[in-house]
Amino acid sequence: MEKNKAMTEEARENRFRMVKETHRKSLEKAIEEKKADKQMTALCKQISKTKNYFTSSSCAGRIILLQLPKEENKKDASFHRKWHRKVKEKELWEGINSKTIGEIWFKLDPFILHIGTNNLENAKKILEIMKKNGLKRGGIMVAKPGKFMIELIGTQAMALPIKNKEKTIVDKKTMKHLLQKANKKLEKNYALLKKLEKSFRKELE
Amino acid sequence: MEKNKAMTEEARENRFRMVKETHRKSLEKAIEEKKADKQMTALCKQISKTKNYFTSSSCAGRIILLQLPKEENKKDASFHRKWHRKVKEKELWEGINSKTIGEIWFKLDPFILHIGTNNLENAKKILEIMKKNGLKRGGIMVAKPGKFMIELIGTQAMALPIKNKEKTIVDKKTMKHLLQKANKKLEKNYALLKKLEKSFRKELE
Repeated sequence: MEKNKAMTEEARENRFRMVKETHRKSLEKAIEEKKADKQMTALCKQISKTKNYFTSSSCAGRIILLQLPKEENKKDASFHRKWHRKVKEKELWEGINSKTIGEIWFKLDPFILHIGTNNLENAKKILEIMKKNGLKRGGIMVAKPGKFMIELIGTQAMALPIKNKEKTIVDKKTMKHLLQKANKKLEKNYALLKKLEKSFRKELE
Repeated sequence: MEKNKAMTEEARENRFRMVKETHRKSLEKAIEEKKADKQMTALCKQISKTKNYFTSSSCAGRIILLQLPKEENKKDASFHRKWHRKVKEKELWEGINSKTIGEIWFKLDPFILHIGTNNLENAKKILEIMKKNGLKRGGIMVAKPGKFMIELIGTQAMALPIKNKEKTIVDKKTMKHLLQKANKKLEKNYALLKKLEKSFRKELE
């Protein structure tokens, strides 16, 4: 029995190593092809270098114009505009004034980071780092033998509809105020990512 | 060794039973004193009746006016107004027009449900139910021997600043549109809670 159990654990560990390696390669490819979010590259690389962790699909945080062709139906939603950086008023209005269908939402989405690891103990370390950094959203989403996935979500967010059926809901002055706010919050979001990166560097093996 | 391990498990289970009982009493007290969110009472009662689960501090979802005395500082934030139901335009403007300090945010917060259980296997059942119901946010937040806590968060959300230093940022017409949207989304949020309650009734022991 003991031997069998040990073998199973070895098999689990091997599987984890393969999964980690696959994600390391995807990350490198994404960086090479400039598809990885710049503000998150250092953090992902850092995690990739650890023994027991990897990152999968993640987002550094962004300002978006989300298009919902049918009101309230997220299935057909698409990005009308997407910026992983601060946005200028002119750029925003270019996006708002161009052809759209249905409803347009202005959103500031915080970062979403997915970290994989091999067992519950290592997953718990991520939860601890979350807490230490004041992150309230996220948790262990997948808990399978040899594969634990933890999601971490930032705290900065904004969301409101600004256009419906080609008609703008929010005026220029209000939109200016909201964009300033969103830019400020995006900066804070990226600062939190930097802080998180430091924690990972210090505390993850 | 085996005996010690068995005893430890018994102790863990006893501790879980005590914690579950404490939360059951808190829930009953909250319902009696009408402090529990109405839209969530049935769901919490349902979970309380199961063998292996309890709920702790949860929110059914709400429309709020959040006051941030110092801009961007959540530490001193307070509820200027809070409704766990649809809101009328008149009520909203009464809130907006009354004395405030600093910045006021209009928010639709989705439900947040905290479920406790005794082990990882039972925690995973909640994750499965989350997935089945299309819930993307949440996960296992605490994973201690005998105490696992899972957070489930709804998908409906809105957030924007509407007043700053006694000056309203958003005009009446825009605010009317946003409130209609928030009311609609709140209804959807409560519908999802009902759906979730059915799943729990069917699938949790």
